[in-house]
Amino acid sequence: MKYINKDEMTSMAPRYRARIINSLSGFKSANLIGTSSQSSTHNLAMFSSIFHLGASPALVGFISRPDSVDRHTLKNIKLTQQYTINQVSESFWQAAHQTSARYDDEECEFKQTGLTAELIAGIDAPFVKESQLKYALTLKSIVPITLNNTVLVIGEITDILCQKSAIKDDGYIDIESLNTVMVSGLDSYHTSKRLSRLSYAKPGVLPKSIPLNGE
Amino acid sequence: MKYINKDEMTSMAPRYRARIINSLSGFKSANLIGTSSQSSTHNLAMFSSIFHLGASPALVGFISRPDSVDRHTLKNIKLTQQYTINQVSESFWQAAHQTSARYDDEECEFKQTGLTAELIAGIDAPFVKESQLKYALTLKSIVPITLNNTVLVIGEITDILCQKSAIKDDGYIDIESLNTVMVSGLDSYHTSKRLSRLSYAKPGVLPKSIPLNGE
Repeated sequence: MKYINKDEMTSMAPRYRARIINSLSGFKSANLIGTSSQSSTHNLAMFSSIFHLGASPALVGFISRPDSVDRHTLKNIKLTQQYTINQVSESFWQAAHQTSARYDDEECEFKQTGLTAELIAGIDAPFVKESQLKYALTLKSIVPITLNNTVLVIGEITDILCQKSAIKDDGYIDIESLNTVMVSGLDSYHTSKRLSRLSYAKPGVLPKSIPLNGE
Repeated sequence: MKYINKDEMTSMAPRYRARIINSLSGFKSANLIGTSSQSSTHNLAMFSSIFHLGASPALVGFISRPDSVDRHTLKNIKLTQQYTINQVSESFWQAAHQTSARYDDEECEFKQTGLTAELIAGIDAPFVKESQLKYALTLKSIVPITLNNTVLVIGEITDILCQKSAIKDDGYIDIESLNTVMVSGLDSYHTSKRLSRLSYAKPGVLPKSIPLNGE
């Protein structure tokens, strides 16, 4: 095993260090966030820091950095109070990655990457038509993280669109069947291979495999 | 495509709703957090909400819920200001899942699940010996999320232990080679299959595959 202490981390070249540290948090979900600007230009940006915050109310969080391309995303969300999150799948992962290029404010990432905007009445942000699992959110809170000048953006889920066959009897969504991809580090993409679902853990009883449809 | 609006979400049975909403954020990293209590009992708990916050300083965040088994984790972190994060791999994913059973405060999840505590001088929290990628953190901040009574716990990475062969020339860590697993929903575990690493995205240039060792 390689042991790295804090002094060694500090003395690493910045890009090397960024790759190391970005690898530590494990596999990350790959999602595209869709927003609209004041002039109704559709914006699309890749995020790998989206995480579940709670089921009731249905809250999802993500981290926005002031120095990255997601600055358009945050600006638009503050303006319209709405955004969409679209799971990236194997059919368009390279186009999804390309949204992280530094396009100008009024350039549309849909046009630049060949992805298709899908609009739904009442939602002031575009979905990605190619995505098989996507949802719209209303902005609830922007929490400043003063330690490194990032912000935690929290939204409440208002509308869900999902391939029907992926929703199992007990509510579990089989995202593997949708070929949802994940990221490791900054730039490695992966598909998944299920080991199993496991029964709810209880003291003194070993967990057992349960069927995909639930117990 | 199945369309679900907010009214339909609200009227779902709570467990069904929890499974749906927990599936939306995509694949989640599976990690064990190790802590020590006042009486030096070692505590170990599974978390699927760990995410990268920044590389410099090296910050990692996770969400703690007041009503779940991770309450011991948060209590211990507040006490000792230290904790470890250990990536879960294919060799011990069932034991890792079992740590989420509601053991009593002074029961040791290592003993209950058969995992091995590993101690390093100067770090007041146990590592998981079986884990091939793990790191120690010092508590930096606990940010209350008033929307749903959870907290965001932020730590700075102080020490990293990683299988040497997994660290590539440019700093990327090949966590797939460590058989790191991920979670979907509440209880489904998966291994990964790499599509490729991709070159840094630039406007007007399509991303290309890059070797595992970097460009």
